Amino acid sequence: MWCQKELSLRAKSRGFHLITDEIVQHLPELSRVSVGLLHVFIQHTSASLTINENADPTVRADFERFFNQAVPENAPYYQHLDEGSDDMPAHLKASILGSSISVPITHGRLNLGMWQGIYLCEHRNQGGGRRLVVTMQGEGLTG
Amino acid sequence: MWCQKELSLRAKSRGFHLITDEIVQHLPELSRVSVGLLHVFIQHTSASLTINENADPTVRADFERFFNQAVPENAPYYQHLDEGSDDMPAHLKASILGSSISVPITHGRLNLGMWQGIYLCEHRNQGGGRRLVVTMQGEGLTG
Amino acid sequence: MWCQKELSLRAKSRGFHLITDEIVQHLPELSRVSVGLLHVFIQHTSASLTINENADPTVRADFERFFNQAVPENAPYYQHLDEGSDDMPAHLKASILGSSISVPITHGRLNLGMWQGIYLCEHRNQGGGRRLVVTMQGEGLTG
Repeated sequence: MWCQKELSLRAKSRGFHLITDEIVQHLPELSRVSVGLLHVFIQHTSASLTINENADPTVRADFERFFNQAVPENAPYYQHLDEGSDDMPAHLKASILGSSISVPITHGRLNLGMWQGIYLCEHRNQGGGRRLVVTMQGEGLTG
Repeated sequence: MWCQKELSLRAKSRGFHLITDEIVQHLPELSRVSVGLLHVFIQHTSASLTINENADPTVRADFERFFNQAVPENAPYYQHLDEGSDDMPAHLKASILGSSISVPITHGRLNLGMWQGIYLCEHRNQGGGRRLVVTMQGEGLTG
Repeated sequence: MWCQKELSLRAKSRGFHLITDEIVQHLPELSRVSVGLLHVFIQHTSASLTINENADPTVRADFERFFNQAVPENAPYYQHLDEGSDDMPAHLKASILGSSISVPITHGRLNLGMWQGIYLCEHRNQGGGRRLVVTMQGEGLTG
């Protein structure tokens, strides 16, 4: 059993955003999978996906501050400058965090830990809308 | 052919730990898969999974020292402080390293390189036991 | 429908290299998959895989400069020194970037974004040839 969809997410501000509910809302088919995997892929090179704490918003704000420190704008050795000072750091952050996540499916639900959620990581100042390709596969529930 | 299990790993000290054998021990079904993938997912946001060198323990000790340097405790801009000074760095390290790994299966065995092993990365001082969801899929061996 | 191949890539210079075309060339079966996933795994602990910008080569050069800065050679606390000063940083970069990528397949093609490509990240000075295990799965096209 395979199910694949392309989702368009509205533009989000630079930073880290919980999108678990937005993804699950588009997947009514999830409830029919007994055992499987959900793969979420972002079709961009200046935004990324990760899984982290789903409760306290200061975690997501600290993510933004940490990655801005760890991957600075205007490093003296950058040569890729044409698209603005936030562009090259965005590419680097995207590869550090990754362009896909995958989550086990069990008894019709994402089998995340109690404190886990899926983050869209928007690394550009004006990233605009973002496209995801969501691919679900597994064994169907019977009955 | 799908097979999914939840494993509970006993509490490990802060640092990087080889867990390949522990995972494989729980998967007698692996020997029946001719071509497939193993997905290992950790249901926590302050521990992570990665694949690296399986031989010299100083590699794993250097990992711990490097990540402590790269993701410091008590950064002046952290706001998420309620759970101790090791908590926010643990969340960051978990996203840098990732919450899942996937490995090809070939002729009934994990098709890792000769020097590769699966690491549990424990980023908390007292992380306690950790839960993994292991999902195996593939084509079965015949005969 | 499963298809798995081991590919040997010729030795590449230290740095970041686009290998999307090289992978696709070895996968004529891709055109027969209507919905699926491609998993690419590198069997080494001092080289890695990531997805990023496929156009301007200065992006890849900036990647090399950034990661050399972020993961230095000869850090005073490294204990794993036997294989040269480029070895321990290579292990660390490999885990930060990851040993596998996975990409959705749609209508017989990799469903990458317009600007995305697959990078081989060679972190050693003389890494030699590198082995990949490529695993493709999905629903076949009919007719």
